[in-house]
Amino acid sequence: MATAPSVSYSITVRLEVPASGTAVSQLTTAVESSGGSVTGLDVTASGHEKLRIDVTIAATSTAHADEIVHKLNEIDGLVIGKVSDRTFLMHLGGKIEMASKHPIRNRDDLSMVYTPGVARVCMAIAANPDDARRLTIKRNSVAVVTDGSAVLGLGNIGPKAALPVMEGKAALFKRFAGIDAWPICLDTQDTDAIVEIVKAIAPGFAGINLEDISAPRCFEIEARLREALDIPVFHDDQHGTAIVVLAALTNALRVVGKKIEDVRVVMSGAGAAGTAILKLLLAAGVKHAVVADIHGVVHSGRTDLVDADPDSPLRWIADNTNPENVTGTLRQAVRSADVFIGVSAPNVLGGDDVAAMADDAIVFALANPDPEVEPSVARATAAVVATGRSDFPNQINNVLVFPGVFRGLLDAQSRTVNTDMMLAAAGALADVVADDEINANYIIPSVFNDKVAGAVAGAVREAAKAHGLAAPHSVPGAVQ
Amino acid sequence: MATAPSVSYSITVRLEVPASGTAVSQLTTAVESSGGSVTGLDVTASGHEKLRIDVTIAATSTAHADEIVHKLNEIDGLVIGKVSDRTFLMHLGGKIEMASKHPIRNRDDLSMVYTPGVARVCMAIAANPDDARRLTIKRNSVAVVTDGSAVLGLGNIGPKAALPVMEGKAALFKRFAGIDAWPICLDTQDTDAIVEIVKAIAPGFAGINLEDISAPRCFEIEARLREALDIPVFHDDQHGTAIVVLAALTNALRVVGKKIEDVRVVMSGAGAAGTAILKLLLAAGVKHAVVADIHGVVHSGRTDLVDADPDSPLRWIADNTNPENVTGTLRQAVRSADVFIGVSAPNVLGGDDVAAMADDAIVFALANPDPEVEPSVARATAAVVATGRSDFPNQINNVLVFPGVFRGLLDAQSRTVNTDMMLAAAGALADVVADDEINANYIIPSVFNDKVAGAVAGAVREAAKAHGLAAPHSVPGAVQ
Repeated sequence: MATAPSVSYSITVRLEVPASGTAVSQLTTAVESSGGSVTGLDVTASGHEKLRIDVTIAATSTAHADEIVHKLNEIDGLVIGKVSDRTFLMHLGGKIEMASKHPIRNRDDLSMVYTPGVARVCMAIAANPDDARRLTIKRNSVAVVTDGSAVLGLGNIGPKAALPVMEGKAALFKRFAGIDAWPICLDTQDTDAIVEIVKAIAPGFAGINLEDISAPRCFEIEARLREALDIPVFHDDQHGTAIVVLAALTNALRVVGKKIEDVRVVMSGAGAAGTAILKLLLAAGVKHAVVADIHGVVHSGRTDLVDADPDSPLRWIADNTNPENVTGTLRQAVRSADVFIGVSAPNVLGGDDVAAMADDAIVFALANPDPEVEPSVARATAAVVATGRSDFPNQINNVLVFPGVFRGLLDAQSRTVNTDMMLAAAGALADVVADDEINANYIIPSVFNDKVAGAVAGAVREAAKAHGLAAPHSVPGAVQ
Repeated sequence: MATAPSVSYSITVRLEVPASGTAVSQLTTAVESSGGSVTGLDVTASGHEKLRIDVTIAATSTAHADEIVHKLNEIDGLVIGKVSDRTFLMHLGGKIEMASKHPIRNRDDLSMVYTPGVARVCMAIAANPDDARRLTIKRNSVAVVTDGSAVLGLGNIGPKAALPVMEGKAALFKRFAGIDAWPICLDTQDTDAIVEIVKAIAPGFAGINLEDISAPRCFEIEARLREALDIPVFHDDQHGTAIVVLAALTNALRVVGKKIEDVRVVMSGAGAAGTAILKLLLAAGVKHAVVADIHGVVHSGRTDLVDADPDSPLRWIADNTNPENVTGTLRQAVRSADVFIGVSAPNVLGGDDVAAMADDAIVFALANPDPEVEPSVARATAAVVATGRSDFPNQINNVLVFPGVFRGLLDAQSRTVNTDMMLAAAGALADVVADDEINANYIIPSVFNDKVAGAVAGAVREAAKAHGLAAPHSVPGAVQ
């Protein structure tokens, strides 16, 4: 598949060319004829004989970037200097830092920030532990916890290799919701150990964002932590995805004029995201859902499920979906369906399968980077198509959800997060797209739409308050 | 003991007074006659009839601040508004935050900081885990870990109440050494659990600062973590204190012209700090050390030690000190000693005891807030006196040490911290005081002396490199 040059594969090449002649135009021509794209060109030093130039080039892959540099090297008189990978440069030394809110200029500052003044604040919290939410970072802090077992689509790469993702997540928490998140990358993948560790570190945080923990361990870890802790625990890969999907589906149904309780939904994928999407769709009113995994449609009579553990996630799916007891393959199930939602693998459906769906079909093909069905093919017959990719309309992106959800939970000092709050988040996100804006190519706002986080946060905050799950307000101790 | 008004007990009082008349001079007089000190006075609104004034007042205690407000209230025509405690105000919402190093303005930024670009960085680290030290926050991050069991002099107040101290510590790490520290306050005081938790969270940090963990658990926790981890583990209450004490003793000996191997040292206190000080002094060359605890001088024949666990800290002291087998009380032992170091309890010695020490005696009375002997009394006969307090000369303060020690360890990518590095830190700290500066009232620099952290860091870095304990340099991946 021919992909466009991307800034995530961009390089900056420092080079020298003769001051006279056509080397500059030759170099831009060479980049473009190689399929790259020049996104910046700075002359950083100029002399009578030579120019030193920093040229920034977007490529489609690391190999492609190497190829472009090779082409440049063939230009007569051009000398290649340092080649820098912009994404790696941005990661040097890490992407986040700790900052002090108050200057410490002299002994007076020191005596308030640290000893002896800090002792009075400690004693106030010892007397009333809820005051930690007022007088410490707990109020606005979230731990981004991973064991590195299911990082992006990269698999079990471990805690150190997961760190760049967790730092990015922390940066997004701050950018979109003003939340102070810190990565906690665990050197264990033992379920019991992870539960004990997260319980133990909870005092300093007002929320736990579980991230990139593989199924089915993620279900048990989240459930046990929710039971044990008095702060919300949210596995973003499950619920963040589920909330965006429900918001997008809500708006796709607005576009095609169907009702959520009427549509036949077929899903591909029964992992962490698939299960969470299914549960939230059922809570939102979906009556006809069928789920397929790698072995075909999930139904109570399927050989591998007859004797399955009654608490297993797949058994739960069999018991709570497929009322008409559909059997067979995904391709068979998807015929005449109104909605297809894929969180599985590339190219499990073709254009014919989409064409065989009901009129005004909705296709969410969310496998990354290659969707369940080529979106341009699906769009030939489906009314609305969404993917996880940024180079097609309707990107289903968790960044739309997790900052606002946690902002709302923290503002409400909520002790938990439940389905009602998630439904509220999805509704608020859908409503950001106004009636005069909505269409088949705009069912979900951009992550840079500045209404999103506030709308989601407000809805979650009100839902948390309505459920009485917010912490009781403590008696102010700072003001005598 | 009459103490001076302190900014750590300062309040800001918003009040209104008649625009004409003598209310303003009456109010400053009232504060001063009550023993308070006016440190700021702002007229924040002015009218024909009334002035609104914010007056900031330093008091000696919370009760004293209340008393001053009560006196102000008696002034005719003066109306008290809001009274704010400045130290509590500074703590509202916490003292530290997370900050992103790069702006996230658009989709291009997002695609490098987060998906899809971040995936390449993750894969580079998965291929070479040491690259986490270049491409993530690990390089410059320290976890400040406590279980809240021995916070300042406040005792076992728990993890939430300990948080303000850990935040302050993190702020000091940044202020003095540019280090990104994050508080980890643990909801367990079980030794095994703490060891497992710290081991598990280590991948995201380049160092562990243990803080305010009670003895004797702190010894075992530190020892087991040092054994298990490939990053340095440093219990600041032990080693930070020991390093400052050794630096101060080195300079006190310069002042009196004695040699460390000749002096008789008597210590009061065998807790975490006492034990660490003793060990570092022995490593630095002290030959004649005697330690007393609450039961008197520690010696091999003491009833409670004859059958003690051979691995117990007190047994170690008995086996490694007191070669002349001194017995009896602290007061008896301190007679004719050259050096007294107290990390124990207030007022265990009197002026007579100090007077009975050798000529040119050195007294470090470090119990906080009330020293082992009143410093002004000790100074009557001792040549050099130091305390832990900021209102006497020669303050022994860990802030002089831990930022520089970790800066050096991180810069060397050291996998551990050992006695040689701590001796180097103490030597460098002592050397910050030049020959033409040193005197009995200036054996240790101020925490705001901007040479301190760099000098300590440089010495620790070189010591770490000399011992071959720094991590091997990884192959750069950011530059092709």
